[in-house]
Amino acid sequence: MTDVIEREIKVKLDVDPQKFIDRLVKEGYEYLGREVQEDIYLNGEAKDFKKTDEALRIRTVGDKIELTYKGPRMGSESKSREEITVVLDSRESMVKILEKLGYRPVYKIKKIRYTFKKENFTICVDNVEGLGNFLEVEGIDVEERELIDFFNKIKILFNLKEEVITKSYLELMVNALDHSNSN
Amino acid sequence: MTDVIEREIKVKLDVDPQKFIDRLVKEGYEYLGREVQEDIYLNGEAKDFKKTDEALRIRTVGDKIELTYKGPRMGSESKSREEITVVLDSRESMVKILEKLGYRPVYKIKKIRYTFKKENFTICVDNVEGLGNFLEVEGIDVEERELIDFFNKIKILFNLKEEVITKSYLELMVNALDHSNSN
Repeated sequence: MTDVIEREIKVKLDVDPQKFIDRLVKEGYEYLGREVQEDIYLNGEAKDFKKTDEALRIRTVGDKIELTYKGPRMGSESKSREEITVVLDSRESMVKILEKLGYRPVYKIKKIRYTFKKENFTICVDNVEGLGNFLEVEGIDVEERELIDFFNKIKILFNLKEEVITKSYLELMVNALDHSNSN
Repeated sequence: MTDVIEREIKVKLDVDPQKFIDRLVKEGYEYLGREVQEDIYLNGEAKDFKKTDEALRIRTVGDKIELTYKGPRMGSESKSREEITVVLDSRESMVKILEKLGYRPVYKIKKIRYTFKKENFTICVDNVEGLGNFLEVEGIDVEERELIDFFNKIKILFNLKEEVITKSYLELMVNALDHSNSN
């Protein structure tokens, strides 16, 4: 149960993710574990989230199921959005109810996420099916400046050259599918 | 977590509900307990459930919170509807998400429910705030004929003269409020 502002910065990892994970541990980042996240994104029949820049997601991690609404982007350099989450007991029933309300599943995204913690930030190394490896740094209810400063320290420490990606995994997936369809 | 057909028959109780409860116990109906149910009904900005004969409800009973969608009436004598339910961890967050999806709370119904069981049926004696006392007989995934037969036995046994009400508590509440507004 949360109703927070989530800020995140993401880059593509062109280095071997395992090496990157080992480095994080070595540098004293606290390792919180590995999990497989299966996300279903829904879209409205009457309301197109692509246009309104909102998102509705059901995430399954093992036995845990969460419904999350994400509001439109608010930040500039970081990706900051209102986020409202409820924990559920059934993915199937939630999908059925949402379909009755005019929202239907449109994309699935599956990733393996390795999570680390340092100070007020969560550092995720994500292997996203069909998209590759990414580093995501997230802060809940932090100032945008704090997140950017923290992220810049990581960039220097790990000598990351990649540009910041402001798109969500959903948008990257939509782009990738659009691209493969047009070929 | 359910996705079932719920059939129910309801009558107004003009006898003292406590006496009726005592009679049920005496006749060997298994008493399952008393609970206070607080229901929030939501309606769509774009989709008017009054017209489509659907319902979306968040029920809170102590610590337990459920979101339920009810489909349009299917039965004739009994009130039979598709029912899909998920259990949630937060009423407030669910209301917020549904508001983002175009559904907002419109009515609250609070009742004290005494529940009994006999054969495949649930027998509820309800004290509904602002509406009075009712007897509801419910069957999940039973034939309409079975429910009506069972209900008729109760009617004879308890000498109930009241007519069957096909309206839901929500509709009775809307009628009562409409009536009080027009005076």
